[in-house]
Amino acid sequence: MSGQLWRKNLINITPYVAGEQPKSDDIIKLNANENAYPPSPRVREILDSYKPEDMRRYPSADAGPLREALAKRAGLSVENVFVSNGSDDVLATAFRAFFNSDKPIVYPDITYSFYPVWCELLKIPSRTVPVGEDFHIDAKSLYGEGNGGVVFANPNAPTSLAESREFVRDVLEHNRDCIVIVDQTYVDFADKGIDCLDMINEYDNLLITHTFSKSRSMAGMRIGEAYGNAELIKYMLAVKDSYNSYPVNRLSIETGVASVQDEEYFQDTLKKIINTRQSTAEALKGLGFEVLDSSTNFLFAAHPKFGAKDIFEYLRDKGIYIRYFNKPRIDNYLRITIGTDDEMSQMIAQIKAFMGA
Amino acid sequence: MSGQLWRKNLINITPYVAGEQPKSDDIIKLNANENAYPPSPRVREILDSYKPEDMRRYPSADAGPLREALAKRAGLSVENVFVSNGSDDVLATAFRAFFNSDKPIVYPDITYSFYPVWCELLKIPSRTVPVGEDFHIDAKSLYGEGNGGVVFANPNAPTSLAESREFVRDVLEHNRDCIVIVDQTYVDFADKGIDCLDMINEYDNLLITHTFSKSRSMAGMRIGEAYGNAELIKYMLAVKDSYNSYPVNRLSIETGVASVQDEEYFQDTLKKIINTRQSTAEALKGLGFEVLDSSTNFLFAAHPKFGAKDIFEYLRDKGIYIRYFNKPRIDNYLRITIGTDDEMSQMIAQIKAFMGA
Repeated sequence: MSGQLWRKNLINITPYVAGEQPKSDDIIKLNANENAYPPSPRVREILDSYKPEDMRRYPSADAGPLREALAKRAGLSVENVFVSNGSDDVLATAFRAFFNSDKPIVYPDITYSFYPVWCELLKIPSRTVPVGEDFHIDAKSLYGEGNGGVVFANPNAPTSLAESREFVRDVLEHNRDCIVIVDQTYVDFADKGIDCLDMINEYDNLLITHTFSKSRSMAGMRIGEAYGNAELIKYMLAVKDSYNSYPVNRLSIETGVASVQDEEYFQDTLKKIINTRQSTAEALKGLGFEVLDSSTNFLFAAHPKFGAKDIFEYLRDKGIYIRYFNKPRIDNYLRITIGTDDEMSQMIAQIKAFMGA
Repeated sequence: MSGQLWRKNLINITPYVAGEQPKSDDIIKLNANENAYPPSPRVREILDSYKPEDMRRYPSADAGPLREALAKRAGLSVENVFVSNGSDDVLATAFRAFFNSDKPIVYPDITYSFYPVWCELLKIPSRTVPVGEDFHIDAKSLYGEGNGGVVFANPNAPTSLAESREFVRDVLEHNRDCIVIVDQTYVDFADKGIDCLDMINEYDNLLITHTFSKSRSMAGMRIGEAYGNAELIKYMLAVKDSYNSYPVNRLSIETGVASVQDEEYFQDTLKKIINTRQSTAEALKGLGFEVLDSSTNFLFAAHPKFGAKDIFEYLRDKGIYIRYFNKPRIDNYLRITIGTDDEMSQMIAQIKAFMGA
């Protein structure tokens, strides 16, 4: 029997090992940058009035109602908005649509860990440029006649740092011949002054990505979006249609629209998280931590005397899950999601206990 | 200004033109093989008891609870089941995981129209083999030392025809060195005797795909699944993880589990559709149609005297949407989704009016 030769045709890929997902409900989970608060109460109203018989029909192929709601909120046309199954799906679609050069795409060495994964999967040549000693990105490092594309997150993760609009403009001015993707996953937690959404009207090679998973408290519903000129969005829709005609389900579309239409709740939630971020950063600084100036819903912090890994493990034993990266340059830093005030107080108390403070 | 050169890096792809999706609620929609009946009433209970605050958390990365429910129903282990964002996503994941040979994959010329699209997108060499004059697939045409993989739908679409278990076994016995994907999208509407799910224990190169969009009335929730040996499933999970860690949202997981656990409602719905299929086929035959022997929730039918396109257009003008394919070999056939008895009666009445019968 000749069987088993099929193994030679398996994809050559290193199976991803998922991060720790504690099963117990009895823990404080500050390790995935999820939102501390529930989504808009209008989501409950959608579930109450939803007719399950509608589930038998395919959803809108382009998540049309959600594109319309997002376009309206941003003062854009529906042709400028793309929606898909979480921002990972949006970003992967964009990589496939736009990064087809034999020149390498460029991204910072410390950033979202999925960029290199998609480059490997889609066989996109890439190179990384180091962020500075202060973890800020050097705009000049992203300049290039030789770039096949550029992607960076602003604010960046896990550093929590934002670059200015002038920075983004500078990068765009020096990359007119390739697509520049600015991943604005965390932008709602930053100063309004850094949002570059309006620049899509000025730069036809700019794509902005965003997600419902952080500021909109809907990680569980898998919704991500992108903004760009109509031609870019048309190509993303074509890639989407060639892979999966209907990537966003009916309840994600409907609950997503409800969230977008509740601006007041959205702003209130952002304010609460920003306030807690401020008080938590001060508390950590009071304990001797270096805390980077966060524009996100998490803090990136290190202590000069205590090892990050030791703090991480101590907190985990106490049922408090934060994030530690065993990677060059950042292996003495902790990434701490902003939870409720009460969760943060419990975490600070445990860190004090660890330090014997 | 050197701008616009970014266009040279756009993906070379023909934007898909979506099928007609009538906007009005006042039509009879028999053109997408959606289910005529709502999903299990337990879905309503899930929506009633669901806590929106859970949406702020990422879902189970592998849709774990749904894998477990499906495995339990099938008498398999959870390691044998993969779940993702609709069967299109499942099939595309399988193509990427398993079809990495430089030899062509093989599929019938008349079948699901997405197979060639994925081959183009993923740069997989392929060849088609013609189905017979009777639209049945010739097992010998799928034999091959030279195959990089095999994929076919059983029952097939748009023909509605099923092949036997012996047929599937024959194809597997002659393709021990590549992966064989059997797309069982419509299997629940067929005789129990053609389901090959149990064969995954016998053939380690067999992958069976399936969906919640047809028999489970949940096209709107985007759930598809695959069954295979643990090694195949492990590779599919690795591809999934390299693209999108969380492809299935929380409400699809929970409502999907509710559906799987309601076997009685599932079987009742299937029976109703099979009965309506029988009466509709008889009515069409009474009007002189040739109707293929359907094992699906649709009929594939042609009339010796009246053109399919003319019937299609007449019905569309009357607000009844069925499917017509302007493609070689099948351009005199109509694909008619089985709706409720009342919908079928209205359709038959309009066909009679068209024929002047």
